[in-house]
Order: sequence, then structure tokens, then C-alpha cells
Amino acid sequence: MSALNVTQKLINDHLIEGELIPGKEIGIKIDQALLQDATGTLVQLELEAMGLDRAKTEVAVQYVDHNLLQTDFKNADDHLFLKSAAQRFGLWFSRPGNGVSHPVHMERFGKPGKTLVGSDSHSCAAGSLGMLAIGTGGLDVAAAIAGEPYYVKMPQVMGVKLTGKLPAWVSAKDVILEMLRRHDVKGGVGKIIEYYGDGLQYLSAMDRHVIANMGAELGATTTVFPSDEETKRFLKSQTREEDWIELKADEGCEYDFHDEIVLDELVPLIALPTSPGNVVPVSEVAGKKISQCVIGSSANPGLRDFWIAGEIVKGNAVHPEVSLDINPTSRQIIQNMIDIKTFGNLITAGARYHQSGCMGCIGMGQAPASGTISLRTMPRNFPDRSGTKDDQVHLCSPETAAASALTGKITDPRDLEKLYHMKYPEYVDPEIHIINTEMLVAPPEDNENVELQKGPNIKSLPHIEELKDKAEVPVLLKMGDNVSTDEILKAGAEVLPFRSNLPEISKYAFTVIDETYYDRALKTKDEFGGHIVVAAENYAQGSSREHAAIAPKYLGQIAVIAKSYARIAWQNLVNFGILPLEFENLDDYDKFEQNDTIKFKNLRSSVKNRETIKVEIIKENGDSIEIPTKHTMSDRQIRVLLKGGIINDFKEKLN
Amino acid sequence: MSALNVTQKLINDHLIEGELIPGKEIGIKIDQALLQDATGTLVQLELEAMGLDRAKTEVAVQYVDHNLLQTDFKNADDHLFLKSAAQRFGLWFSRPGNGVSHPVHMERFGKPGKTLVGSDSHSCAAGSLGMLAIGTGGLDVAAAIAGEPYYVKMPQVMGVKLTGKLPAWVSAKDVILEMLRRHDVKGGVGKIIEYYGDGLQYLSAMDRHVIANMGAELGATTTVFPSDEETKRFLKSQTREEDWIELKADEGCEYDFHDEIVLDELVPLIALPTSPGNVVPVSEVAGKKISQCVIGSSANPGLRDFWIAGEIVKGNAVHPEVSLDINPTSRQIIQNMIDIKTFGNLITAGARYHQSGCMGCIGMGQAPASGTISLRTMPRNFPDRSGTKDDQVHLCSPETAAASALTGKITDPRDLEKLYHMKYPEYVDPEIHIINTEMLVAPPEDNENVELQKGPNIKSLPHIEELKDKAEVPVLLKMGDNVSTDEILKAGAEVLPFRSNLPEISKYAFTVIDETYYDRALKTKDEFGGHIVVAAENYAQGSSREHAAIAPKYLGQIAVIAKSYARIAWQNLVNFGILPLEFENLDDYDKFEQNDTIKFKNLRSSVKNRETIKVEIIKENGDSIEIPTKHTMSDRQIRVLLKGGIINDFKEKLN
Repeated sequence: MSALNVTQKLINDHLIEGELIPGKEIGIKIDQALLQDATGTLVQLELEAMGLDRAKTEVAVQYVDHNLLQTDFKNADDHLFLKSAAQRFGLWFSRPGNGVSHPVHMERFGKPGKTLVGSDSHSCAAGSLGMLAIGTGGLDVAAAIAGEPYYVKMPQVMGVKLTGKLPAWVSAKDVILEMLRRHDVKGGVGKIIEYYGDGLQYLSAMDRHVIANMGAELGATTTVFPSDEETKRFLKSQTREEDWIELKADEGCEYDFHDEIVLDELVPLIALPTSPGNVVPVSEVAGKKISQCVIGSSANPGLRDFWIAGEIVKGNAVHPEVSLDINPTSRQIIQNMIDIKTFGNLITAGARYHQSGCMGCIGMGQAPASGTISLRTMPRNFPDRSGTKDDQVHLCSPETAAASALTGKITDPRDLEKLYHMKYPEYVDPEIHIINTEMLVAPPEDNENVELQKGPNIKSLPHIEELKDKAEVPVLLKMGDNVSTDEILKAGAEVLPFRSNLPEISKYAFTVIDETYYDRALKTKDEFGGHIVVAAENYAQGSSREHAAIAPKYLGQIAVIAKSYARIAWQNLVNFGILPLEFENLDDYDKFEQNDTIKFKNLRSSVKNRETIKVEIIKENGDSIEIPTKHTMSDRQIRVLLKGGIINDFKEKLN
Repeated sequence: MSALNVTQKLINDHLIEGELIPGKEIGIKIDQALLQDATGTLVQLELEAMGLDRAKTEVAVQYVDHNLLQTDFKNADDHLFLKSAAQRFGLWFSRPGNGVSHPVHMERFGKPGKTLVGSDSHSCAAGSLGMLAIGTGGLDVAAAIAGEPYYVKMPQVMGVKLTGKLPAWVSAKDVILEMLRRHDVKGGVGKIIEYYGDGLQYLSAMDRHVIANMGAELGATTTVFPSDEETKRFLKSQTREEDWIELKADEGCEYDFHDEIVLDELVPLIALPTSPGNVVPVSEVAGKKISQCVIGSSANPGLRDFWIAGEIVKGNAVHPEVSLDINPTSRQIIQNMIDIKTFGNLITAGARYHQSGCMGCIGMGQAPASGTISLRTMPRNFPDRSGTKDDQVHLCSPETAAASALTGKITDPRDLEKLYHMKYPEYVDPEIHIINTEMLVAPPEDNENVELQKGPNIKSLPHIEELKDKAEVPVLLKMGDNVSTDEILKAGAEVLPFRSNLPEISKYAFTVIDETYYDRALKTKDEFGGHIVVAAENYAQGSSREHAAIAPKYLGQIAVIAKSYARIAWQNLVNFGILPLEFENLDDYDKFEQNDTIKFKNLRSSVKNRETIKVEIIKENGDSIEIPTKHTMSDRQIRVLLKGGIINDFKEKLN
């Protein structure tokens, strides 16, 4: 391994345990940590439970970008709690309304060569700056803040060579949509995507953010870009040139997988409902009537993304049947938008602007009208995520969204040349951006005496039970492929405020899939001591929310049996003491039906000794079959799981 | 009556029925109509039920400023429905996010000498331009749009003489707070407040808007200002100078009541929780810690109001424990705020801005944290209105709010001179404002063929029962003074989306007062055919929402017995067929207890013939007392009430 790729260099530089052998668990030193509010309240409660004195990472930041609507006391109480906790444990605090975590972090804190974990699945966006940035469950982030290594199975690295230059009306979003078209939502599972090649010179750091951010939608562990002249130019525009170092792959380095995109050949792309992997050329669905276009989110956060929309609508009016919603990424972006006239262009064309934050991207408002098409520059269009049942959310570039806002129907932006005699506008990034740090609160020196402010909705975690040795419990759900965390525990304005109140939020577990789950789970917990669920491929894809594990655990979930797991969710299950089993023979999936009873025997020793775990399936008529399953946990994970998860493990360490 | 005041001139010019005798019902021609979305969906359904072809008023505008959060499909569905209905019935449509109805209407449509009715209690704000503008129930507005006169008891006129000039750090909000300090929330009941005097020359039209708007909080029928040089200057700044006419009180005219405010003597004032009438000098409560300041709403909507806040915080940072929330009134105000640097001043100081609309003023987001003080420039602080239980909302001027945002505690803005060595900044209004009309959609010429777009949450109104002749029903609630419509049917993000779905919204009736009301009402409707409620003075003060009448009617409410009524609510009760009874002897109020049974006999003929209406009160132990009550309805209202309300009356007319 003399010639290293960027991923290998980053990992080598931070390796504490293990070796760079794909599939084997490694422990790496974490330099930076990122929290958002929806997951962060739980992380802060975990830090409190762990008795942490002060964050041990170089930089840790608590952002508030999800729960901004404040329809009752809970959001505002959370904001006060998070501020007090950030101050208590020595974290930076990005106040409500300051902006979306990933782009703000990139602008103010991102550093080439550093590692980061974040309690948000899009934390991988920081890979755009030559960082190794991994989205993960809150407990992993709490552990990293406390100075523990971050454990992950060493992924394989997919090298994606970019050549040529993007044509007019095609932008970074179309690059990642092309990756999703090719590899779908699980094509990146177990992999780090590393981009290289001559094509990079035409992709700004913020363009790379677009691509790295939605690497999460590929299921990838993370995405890595080199740190080059474009990275330097970006840091300079943020008045942080001194944070730049060069970081490039060695000549002759190797990748486990290969792909190549000839940028010149790309066309405007769009992801159809209800998966980011449902990608087709815009031209294929052009002409369909729309009711809403939303521009913003961490998937298109840059000044350029708003600028191009402003240039496209400039001098024209938004179609009268379309709501063009603008979510400025941050207060800094607003000031820059005003400065370069983008804000004026958008508002004069009839755009409706909103406060800075995730907003509709996480279902906090902006729900589209029933039965109508919404185009969004956001990263996800899972069912129900927008807040409207049977929604028809399409994901696309700002070019496509703005063009469609003008015409009132899905429009290939290249058609603007004919329709509006428009030339593709050429963006010139301001050499130095206006910098806004007024809502970024530094951690105090004397943090020990800060008191936590806990409102009535902020509840301590209950005791978590350790893994049972035997069980005879029902299969409460049998699910298909690609079940998302939005289906396991939905987001949105109704549910997000309960993220620091486990008994309340558990009532929403699996409601998108089956509204009877909660009641049945409570009942079977009482009667049989728990339950399991069965799923097919890529179980629990999507966001990093731990609640998709801790709520089912709270309701008695002992194990999941699936064909395969999304990476973060798999870790979260272990962290909260749910056994993540895999089929030895994939066909055995077909042998399960909802309401079967299953029997486990000697479960603790089988798990510990990595023996085949036999599952006896008892049908309603009394017939029974036995099938073999396995787990792929590391020794560390086995230890954690047997204790009922990381919280119990930590408690033991501290006592 | 040779010398007339402005009110008399306006009424004389529009009188269709009746005479200018206080207390007698008059019918007046209506020139303009204003609808907002929370009440407007119902009004549009009423227009549909009436079979209206095209609005007969000179100008009718459907605004969308309340339901903007879109946490699910309902808001967005309503927006599409309202747009289609506005187009169908020939109304202007102000699109979601364009801005708050009252100031936008004043800027774009207000005309001295005209009459207006609006389905929002703050519609009286248009009185600032020399209009007779009355907030009323939606059915009255529907009738006016259909060309019917507007019926109201001829109010008495209170002349308020303004002399002198406001001192530094004191502004228009303190004038209306002084009126509320003197007269409290029912001091204006049955009255029109007309301002005159030399002091007017220093109050801009937008200052007058602040005063006229919160005339609603006095319980006044409306507020009237003359149309003078300041009015002309305002219309010119809106590029509508041609709409100006002079309208002044004649020398020697008379008023039924008199008051006088020497402006020089005013100090910064603040309304304490939980009534706009709880007014004290700011200095009396200075020093209390706060968590939130919100600047905006129809009670402080002008460019000056934001500008002064921006000047106060300029160069300083908002206190780290305070969320300074800015609700720009309209897209036009944003553009002007950017133009005069106010937007930059606010954002650089750490303010958090929001979309244009009512927002926290009507409990759509911005709920404060539990147990903390929120200062707001808004018009109302009724219990629970902010969305936080036991909230501590204080109402004040932008000067007081901005000063307090800097210090983190309630601060008399005059203290800024010592604390920050600040001189009171002097505002110069731009001669011509930037005009923004991109989101204002004109009614089409060919409106007949527009189809209504009804989402699944938009339900037709059920049949309304006519008044019973006899009844033996329980008293479900006995309430005290000043019960507000926020307590009868609360607003906020949870409830507002059901405004076009009567069965759903009825579940929230009286929940603020007694959570068991809904279940008990349903039960007694089945068992006894209905119920009554008893209240003391000023029943159903506050907003104009008809749902505070139609939901209880739907749940079987036959009558209210109260010491007195707020004007709009009293009309709404009649319009929806609930009998509004008054005590002949106020002390009889004490004879009622919750759960008493009452008996009515020959109710229809007693109502019709204006006989004393005898109410037999039967106690739980079987004892019974009879007390005399009365009603003060006009002949027209008696006719309407007996039929079960205006909808039934209209249906009859059209058949």
C-alpha cells in the first residue's frame, strides 16, 4: 500500500484500532462533531448521563435547524435546553435560524484532513472539503465527543473518475442524480465514494457539497473529495485560507470499485416519487403540471444555487398556479443573496421566502397540496416525508426547479433557450463572501457551572433491558425492501417535537407502515415479553435518527431479521440493544408471515460465540420450521449488545 | 345635525336603512370587502352556497396570511381552494406569503371616504385612512360581497382629541395602549372611536393604522381618522395620490363621549399577561428577564416600526438569551427594509426573520418557551394564544421590544440614552416606497367558468336547525367576564387548519376553558336536544371568528345568557341561530350554577314579540327559580334567528 487514495490517507492518519481491511471494524480518532437539534436533544441527555465534563473533540457544534416552527412550547424549550447543554459541555451553539448545519459547518469549521461524525445522515457533506465525515447515530457522536474512537466496518472504496465539464443547464445535482440513477439507494452500502479526475477542476467546493451530501442517498458510508485549489479558493472566500492543506490521492493508488462519469454527457435529471433512486431525464416527464417548487436545503445550499434560480426567473413572473418557495440556507447566504441581487430577483418574480433551516426538507411545514406535484432541490422524497399523504415530490436541480416554476409544469431547463430566449447564465463566485457569525455562540471557558435548562417535555431515558437468552414472541411486521427510517419513525411537525420524550415519540413507531403496530407492540410486550420484525434488503435506509431503534426497543423489539441493513441503522440497533440478524439463505425470507411466532434458544451464547442463530418459526396452525440466521457484529459490538446497548456499557465504564 | 363628525359623514354617505340613532340598527352600503384565509374558506363556501355570480363590491380581496405553516396538506389545499374561489367570484387574491391583510389592503386598496367590512376583527385598521371599516363575521362579509347592506346597531361616537406631540422613545403603540389603560377591553363596546385634534399632524397614516388596528382591543365597533395631508402623503408614497380625498369633521360637530390625550405626557407602556387591557408603564415592570421579542403583525406593520428596531440594535448584538424574531409585514416591506438598510441592521445584530404573515400573532409558530416572558408588538395576549400554556406574553412598542432584546430584560427604551448613549433616531419616510404587487392576482373578466378546487379537508356546511320553541337542557358552562373567542375556539397551528371542516374543528370548542365540553355537549345533544352556556360581561371578545358560534351551534347550543356581549360575537351568534339572551337583572347571573337544568317555553313567540323571556332554573336537588331575560335584536335579526341563521335565510331568498 505505497500509493494511497484520499480515503486511505484520512483513515491512516486517524487509525486507533484495527486494520484497513474491508469488512473489519476499525476505530478512528474523531476531530470534529456535528449535532442537529432533532437528534441533538437525545445526544445531550446522553452526555449528561455519561457525566461528561467537556467535549474532547477539536470542534463540536450543536446546530438548531430542524425544529424551528415552534407551534407550542416544546421547540422553544428544546432551544433553551440545547443552548444550556452546549455551554455546559463545551460545544459551539448555532442558534435557531442561523442556518442548516452542513453548509454552515463547511463554511465556518470544515478543515481538509480532519475527521467528523455527525448525528445527521447528511454529515457526509463535509467530505466536499477533503474530510472523512460520517453521519451516524447520536450515541456514536456522544461517544466521540467524550473522546472515544468511532467504530465502523472498514468500507470498500469506490473511485469515481470525473472527466470533462458539465454542459449548460446541467449542474452538480445532476451528477449525484446520475450516480443514483446508476447505483440506486443501496449501491453505496458498505462503500466510501471517492471522486477524482480532471472534471473536478470545474466543480466548486459547494458543488462538491451537493454531491457529497446526497451520497447518503446512495447508502454510502461517506463521500470523499480531494482538497485542491478549489478547496483553497472556497476557504479563502470564507476568510479561512489558513485552514487549507492539500490532500490528494497518490499516483497509482487503487480503488475496490471503479466508475466514471463523463460530465459533458450529462443531461438534467429528476428523481420521481418516492425514492431518490427513481431517476430519469427531466425530458422524460416534462409537461406535467406542478403546484410547488422549493429551492434550498443541504442538498443545494450554495449561493450559486439560489443565484441561478434568481437569474432564471429574473424579469419574469412565477406561474400563478405555482408556489416558488425559497429556503435560504443561512443568514449568511441571505446577506450574500441580497448583495448579489439574487434576493431581489427572486422576490420580484413572486417567490415566497422562509426562515433559514431545513423546513420542508424534514417535513417542518411547506407540505404540498393533495394530489399535486412538488419539485424540490432537496435530498429525499420518501413517502409521507413532506407531510402530505401520497405526496408526489420530485428531486431536481435549481435549474430544473426554477424553469418549471416559470412554466407551471416540469420543464427541462435547456428548453429555456427556446421558450424564453435565455442563455445559460455564468456564475462568478464573489472572491470574499459576507461573513455572518452573530448567531454562533462559542463555548465558555468555565463550562462546569452552566446549568441545564430542561422544559417539561425533556425526559430522561428509561433503563434499557439487556438481550434475553430465550424468547417466544410474535413477528409484528413483515416488510419489503428499502424500508426507510421515515417509515419506521416519521419526521415532520407533529412528531419531531417529541424527540426528547421517548414514551411519547414511541406512539409514532411504524405508523406509516401499520397504524396498529404501537398497540400490538405494547400488548405483546406485556404478554410475551417482546416481539421481532422481519424485513428484506437495505432495512432502515435514510436518516440517522436513533429513534428508529430506541422507540421499537422501548416497545419490546428484541431483534430484526433482514436480508441486509443500511449502515447507520444497523449500528443504531446494536447501540440500543436490538439484535440485527441476517438470513443465511435469503430465500428464507419467504418463509415468514406476519403474526408467526418465533422461538429463540440460547440466544446470548450463540450471539457471543458467533454460532448460527437458529430461529424456529411457528405458524398459526402449529406447523413449525427452523431457519439459520447470523450476525456480523464485531467483538466490541457483541459486548455492547449483550449489555443492552452503549448507554449501559458507558454506565458500567464510569462506575 | 348641520355640523357632522367624520363618522357621521361616512355613515350618511352610505346609509340605506335606518337612522343615525345610537342603538338602532342601520343598514349601510359596503364598498370594499376583506377576507383572510382562516375565516375566508368558510366565507367562500357560503358564497358558493348562495350561488353568487360575481362580487358586487367595488373591491373585494381574499388574503392568505394566517395558515402559512403547511404542516400537512390542509393549508396548501386551502390556498388552492381560495385562489380558485377568488377567481370564481371575482375577488382579488393576495397569495400566501404576500403579507398581512390589513397593511397590504391599506397600501394597495384603501380609499378615504369608503366603507369596508372584513372577516377579521382588525379590519378596523383601515379607519386609519378615513374609511368606515368594520370587522365582522364571515357571513356578514359574504352578504356584503353579494351586494346586501351591512347591518349594525348605530354606535355612539367617542371623540378623542389628540394634542401636542409624542416625546422621544414613545410611539403610536403607546397611544393605543394608553387608550386601553384608560378604557380596558370593553371601554369601546357599542362605540366608534374618532380621533381629531392638532396632535394628528405628527402621526403618519401608518401610525394611525397602529391605533386603529388595536381599537378592536377596546371592543370598539371601529376607529375613524380624518383624511388629511398625512393621508395624502401616504397615498402618494404608495403611488396612489389620485385616490385621496379630504375628509374632515365639521367645525362645531358633536360627539357622544369625549376623551383627550396630551401626547407629550405619554410614557412607554406595556400590556401585561393576559389581556391587552392590563396596561402599565414599562418602567413599572422593567428588569424582568425575557426569552423572546417578536416585532411585526398588523399592530405594528409599518416600515418605521422595523426601522426603529433596526436603528436601536444597530452595531450591538441581541442578548444571547433572547430570540429576536422579525415578521416582515409583507414582501413589499421586506424590499423597503432592504432598501433603507433596516434588514441588514437587524440581521447583523442577530435577529431571526420569518416569512410574511400573521405567524405568532395568531399562534402559527413562534410559541415561547415554558415559563418565560415574550415581548411582542402584536395586538393580543389572551391566554394560550401564543401556543404555550400559561404563556407570559407582553404587548409593547417596537422601541420597547428592541431595547429589551438588547438588554435581555424588560427595558424602558428611554433608558437607552443612559445605557447605550443613544439618541432617539428620527425617522424620515421614503417619499416613494418600492411597490411590490407580484403576488396580488386580479380577478379575471370571465369568472363564470372557473372551477373550485376543493381538497379533502374542505367540507360543505351541514344543515342548521331553526330555533326550538321549548327546551329543557343543561347549563354546560358558567363563565366569567371577558371570555375571548380564543377561549371559545382557539387559534394556533393545531386548530386553524380545520376552519373549513366544521365536524373536526368543533372538537376544540371551549377546550381552553373546559376540556370536557365537547363530550358533554355531544351527549346532551343526544339526550336533551341541546344545551346553553352562561357568561358575565363582554362575552366572546376578541377576534371575529364565526367558528366560536357555528361550532357550539353544531354541538347543540341553543342560547347564551350573558351580562353583555362583544359586538361581532353577538352578531355571529344571531347569524348562526344561537339566541343571545341578556339578564334583565344582572344579579341573576349569581343564581346559575354549572349543571343546572333550564327550561324555556314559548321561546319562538316570546323572541318574535320581544316579550320577556322567562328562564326556569332547575337545581340538581329539584328546586327551581324563574328569572327574566331579554334580547336586543332588530326585526331583521329576529327573522334571521328564527330561521336558524343567515344561511337558511339566504337559501330561502334564492329559492
